[in-house]
Amino acid sequence: MAELKFEIVEHIGVLSENAKGWTKELNKVSWGEHAPKYDIRDWSPDHTRMAKGVTLTDEELEALKAILNGEVEDDIDESQML
Amino acid sequence: MAELKFEIVEHIGVLSENAKGWTKELNKVSWGEHAPKYDIRDWSPDHTRMAKGVTLTDEELEALKAILNGEVEDDIDESQML
Repeated sequence: MAELKFEIVEHIGVLSENAKGWTKELNKVSWGEHAPKYDIRDWSPDHTRMAKGVTLTDEELEALKAILNGEVEDDIDESQML
Repeated sequence: MAELKFEIVEHIGVLSENAKGWTKELNKVSWGEHAPKYDIRDWSPDHTRMAKGVTLTDEELEALKAILNGEVEDDIDESQML
């Protein structure tokens, strides 16, 4: 069985936690010894298991931040947010 | 072969585009007739094909926005961002 080498080089923040203790997190993760990228996915409590997710470059994370902060403010129904 | 029903109910923003025209997007997507959730993933130009991604609840998107905007400002090396 192949092995996937990865390293969470920076824990940035937790978005949510489910009943089994898995957490959806924004981290900076190095996959297969490549340069670290931002990464949003679910992790088991001990961070040895993961679910599918997305990786984001610095530029993609900056674009996402800009989208969330204004360009699309009218498109997001903030009354539905906490 | 099973069919996955989905509907992009709202195009919110494009994070990046690659050489083949696939775009990484933040959308609101309804999967299998469930209530729409925020969704970050890559899409083909005509939005008929997709890559793996993450779905986010309203609360998770709000948490992500808060993380990007401050709580972790010191952890993100902004000199590496555009």
